[in-house]
Amino acid sequence: MTDCQGDEEGGMSPMELYEKLNAQGDQVRSLKSAKAEKAEIDAAIQLLLKLKVNYKQMTGQDYKAGCPPSENLIVSNNGPTADGSDGEDVVDPWNVSASSAKGVDYDKLIVRFGSSKIDKELLDRIEKASGQRPHHFLRRGIFFSHRDMHQILDAYEKHKSFYLYTGRGPSSEAMHVGHLIPFIFTKWLQDAFDIPLVIQMTDDEKYLWKDLTLEECHRFTVENAKDIIACGFDVKKTFIFSDLDYMGASPEFYRNVVKTQKHVTFNQVKGIFGFTDSDCIGKISFPAIQAAPSFSSSFPQIFGGKKDVPCLIPCAIDQDPYFRMTRDVAPRIGLLKPALMHSTFFPALQGAQTKMSASDPNSSIFLTDTPKQIKNKINKHAFSGGKDTVEEHRKYGGNTEVDVSFLYLTFFLEDDEKLEKIREDYTSGALLTGELKKILIETLQPMIAQHQERRKQVTDEIVQQFMTPRPLNFKF
Amino acid sequence: MTDCQGDEEGGMSPMELYEKLNAQGDQVRSLKSAKAEKAEIDAAIQLLLKLKVNYKQMTGQDYKAGCPPSENLIVSNNGPTADGSDGEDVVDPWNVSASSAKGVDYDKLIVRFGSSKIDKELLDRIEKASGQRPHHFLRRGIFFSHRDMHQILDAYEKHKSFYLYTGRGPSSEAMHVGHLIPFIFTKWLQDAFDIPLVIQMTDDEKYLWKDLTLEECHRFTVENAKDIIACGFDVKKTFIFSDLDYMGASPEFYRNVVKTQKHVTFNQVKGIFGFTDSDCIGKISFPAIQAAPSFSSSFPQIFGGKKDVPCLIPCAIDQDPYFRMTRDVAPRIGLLKPALMHSTFFPALQGAQTKMSASDPNSSIFLTDTPKQIKNKINKHAFSGGKDTVEEHRKYGGNTEVDVSFLYLTFFLEDDEKLEKIREDYTSGALLTGELKKILIETLQPMIAQHQERRKQVTDEIVQQFMTPRPLNFKF
Repeated sequence: MTDCQGDEEGGMSPMELYEKLNAQGDQVRSLKSAKAEKAEIDAAIQLLLKLKVNYKQMTGQDYKAGCPPSENLIVSNNGPTADGSDGEDVVDPWNVSASSAKGVDYDKLIVRFGSSKIDKELLDRIEKASGQRPHHFLRRGIFFSHRDMHQILDAYEKHKSFYLYTGRGPSSEAMHVGHLIPFIFTKWLQDAFDIPLVIQMTDDEKYLWKDLTLEECHRFTVENAKDIIACGFDVKKTFIFSDLDYMGASPEFYRNVVKTQKHVTFNQVKGIFGFTDSDCIGKISFPAIQAAPSFSSSFPQIFGGKKDVPCLIPCAIDQDPYFRMTRDVAPRIGLLKPALMHSTFFPALQGAQTKMSASDPNSSIFLTDTPKQIKNKINKHAFSGGKDTVEEHRKYGGNTEVDVSFLYLTFFLEDDEKLEKIREDYTSGALLTGELKKILIETLQPMIAQHQERRKQVTDEIVQQFMTPRPLNFKF
Repeated sequence: MTDCQGDEEGGMSPMELYEKLNAQGDQVRSLKSAKAEKAEIDAAIQLLLKLKVNYKQMTGQDYKAGCPPSENLIVSNNGPTADGSDGEDVVDPWNVSASSAKGVDYDKLIVRFGSSKIDKELLDRIEKASGQRPHHFLRRGIFFSHRDMHQILDAYEKHKSFYLYTGRGPSSEAMHVGHLIPFIFTKWLQDAFDIPLVIQMTDDEKYLWKDLTLEECHRFTVENAKDIIACGFDVKKTFIFSDLDYMGASPEFYRNVVKTQKHVTFNQVKGIFGFTDSDCIGKISFPAIQAAPSFSSSFPQIFGGKKDVPCLIPCAIDQDPYFRMTRDVAPRIGLLKPALMHSTFFPALQGAQTKMSASDPNSSIFLTDTPKQIKNKINKHAFSGGKDTVEEHRKYGGNTEVDVSFLYLTFFLEDDEKLEKIREDYTSGALLTGELKKILIETLQPMIAQHQERRKQVTDEIVQQFMTPRPLNFKF
C-alpha cells in the first residue's frame, strides 16, 4: 500500500502523510488564531479531514497528534486479511506455507505486503536502462514484486548509480539450488548495471536462532561464501561480509545499527516478526543488523562516506518484513529507503506448498549432489503433475502448474522456446513425466557439475579477499 | 541471596541449583526404572524434595523442569519488599530516590540486592593481600557492598591476577565531583594490586536514552575521558574505550555481546530494568553491551585471548542490575562471573535524598567550577544539619548525618582524625555551619584546581593513546 500510486497522498509513506497531517493541523490552528476568512478556514479543515480519512485507510489507525505511525503495523502478521479465512498463506522470514498445491498466491501477497508488481512497463524500462534483455527470472515472473524500482531507474538514467545488497543466513554447510536464485539474479543485475554489491552473511542471526556455536556459524559463512563466489562474482566489485566479523571491524556499520535500534520499538518488531516476551534480546534487536547494509554509509571503504547512494535489494519475498521495517526507519534517521525486488519461493521437490529445507536432504537438489544423486532424487521425489497411468496422461495431459520438474525448469532452463514447447507437450500429454524428469536431470547435472568445478577453484584465500573490507572498483 | 554462604547449596547460583535439581530428577527416574532398592529411591527423592525447597527459597519460584531460573527475577524492581511499604528507596540505573533525608538505607539494599557487606574481615584481607592500608572510601563505608571479593582475593593470594572494569555514561561535557568517586577508588585499587583496568564509555547508551546525536555522545566521551585521565591513570595499564568505536573495532567484543544477548530474554530485562513494549530495541539489547567488558575475552589485545581472567567491577550500587544480569548469564556461556564492589551515592548539595544531576549546575560542585563558584555554591546550596540560630546550635549541636558539607568531607578529607574532630565539634555545637562550610570550601578549592591543572595537560593525543586498542604492560 505504501508504494501504490494514485491521488496526491498515494505516493506518500504513512510517516510522510502523518507529517503532512501535523502541518495541516498547525495550519488550521494558525488560521483560526489569526482570525482568517471563514471560507479559508473551512477549506483548511476540509483538507485536514480528507487527510485523516486517507491516513486511516493507509494505516488502519486513527490519526493522533504525537503518535507517529509505523509502516510496519499495517503489515503485521503479513497484513490484515480481508476475509480472515484460514486459507491464507503464511510468509515471514521463518515460516512459509501455502494453502494451495500451486504454492503461495503471489498476487495476493503483493496486495498484503503493499509492494508493486513487476510489470511489462518496468521490464521495458530495465531493458532500456541496462541495454540487456531482462533475465528469464524477470521474464517468467520469478522476480515478481518490487518497491521503488522506478526511483532507482529514474536516478540511474540521470547517471546516478546505485548498489546491490543481498544476503544469506548460513545455517549449515549445505546449500541447495534454490539458495542460488537470489545470487544468480544479483549477478545478472550487477553485470547489467555495472554496480557494487555487498553480501551479508548473517552468522549472528543463525547463532541467535539455532542451536549452533558462534564458531560453527562462522565456519558456515566461509563455506557458503565459496558457493556464492562460485556463481561468478567479481572480487573487484563485490564485498562479502560476516556480521560477526564486520560488526567488529566497522564503527560506521555499528552506528547505523544503533541508529536503527533507537527508532524501532519492541511493539513494532512484535508486530512485524511475531517476537514474544520470551524471545532473547538478541533476536529482538537483530532486525537492525539486517537493516544496516541498506545504507551506503555502512560501507565507507566502498562509498567514501557518502550516505546517499541508493540501495537495491534482490531477495526472496519472505525477507520483506526486514525491509519494510528498514524503509519505515530510513527517513527518520536521515537515510534513503532501499528499493527491493522480490522473488517467489523455490519449491521443494515434494511440491510447491512449502519452502525447501536445508535440513532435509531429499527436499531439494544440493550443490554437493553427484549426477547419480540428482537423477535418483528427481526420479524418486520430484512431485509430478502427470496422470496416474500413461494412458490417462496421454489422454488428459499433465499439469505444469504443480509439476515440480517443470517448475524447476522455469528456473534453470534459459531457452524460452524450449520451455514453452515442453509446457505444451506436457499439457497435451505428448510428454510423459519420466521424459520431463529426464530433461530436468540433464539440465541440472551439468549445471551442478560446473558449479562444483568452479567452487573447487575458490580457495580460502579468495574467500579472504572477498571478505576483506576494502574499496571496490567504483568511484563515488 | 545468591552470594550468601551456608549449607551445601548456599554457595550455588539459582542456575547451578536448577541444574542440580535436573540431575537429581534424572537420578530418581533412573533409579526407579532400574528398580533400585526402595531405601535408595526414597533417599534420592528426599534429596530432590530438599533441593526443591531450597530452590523455592532462593528464587521465590517453584522448580519446573525446562524452565531455568533467572538470578534477576529475585531482585526485579529491586527485589521483593518484605512489607510492601511505600517508604522503600528506589535504586536502578536511571532512578535513585531515598525516603529519608539520611539518604538510601544501604543495609536494606544489601539484603534486597542479595550482595554482601564489606566488613572488617574483608578490609583486613584487602590490606593483607595488597599491603596497603584500605582507602578511606573503604574505611568509611563509602564502598560498602560487594559480590565475590573473597574469591578474587583467594585467587590473588595464589598469584592469579584479575582486572578492573568500570565505566561512565557520557551524557554531557560537565562532570561533577561525585562522578570522580568510582575513578578515585579504581585508581587506588589499580595501584594497590597492580592490575589492568578497562573503562567503558557508554556513548551508545546515552544516544539511545537521551535526545542527543551520535556525534554529541562521542564528543562527550572524549571530553569525559580527559577528566578521567586527569585522575592520574597510567596509559600503560589502562584502556579507555567508546562503545561506538570499540564495538566496530573488536569482533571478540561483539561475539561476547551476541552470546549474552542469546541468553537473556525480554522477560528478564523487563523484570530487571523495567523496560516496556514501547521501548526501542536498542535499549532492550543494551544491557549485553554493558555486560561484555566483564569478560576478559572481550579484550584479546590485553589478555592474549584468555577467557578466565577474573574481573572486579567497582561501581555505584545503581549499576548493580546490569551485573546481576551478567552474573546470571556468565556460567551459561562458559565465562566467569564478575566480582563487584558497590559505592553509596554521592549526595546532591541540596541533600542526600537524591542522586546528583549533571544537568542542574547548582546540584553539585563541577570539575570546571572556579574557586569563587565553589565557595558560593557551598555557602548558598549545601544543605545544613545545623540549627536555625547560633544560640540553638551552640546548645544542641548539628547533625552530621544529614549535613551535606560534612558528608562531602567524608569523601574528600583524607585525614581520619581531623574528620572525627570535625564530627565531634559539629555535633557538640562547638563548630558552626559557616565554619564547617569553610573547611569544605578549603578542601575542595585546591582539589578542583589541581584537577583542572592536570586536565589541561591531557591533550587529544593522550586521549587517543588511552583509547587505542593495544596490549597493556601485563603478561597473561
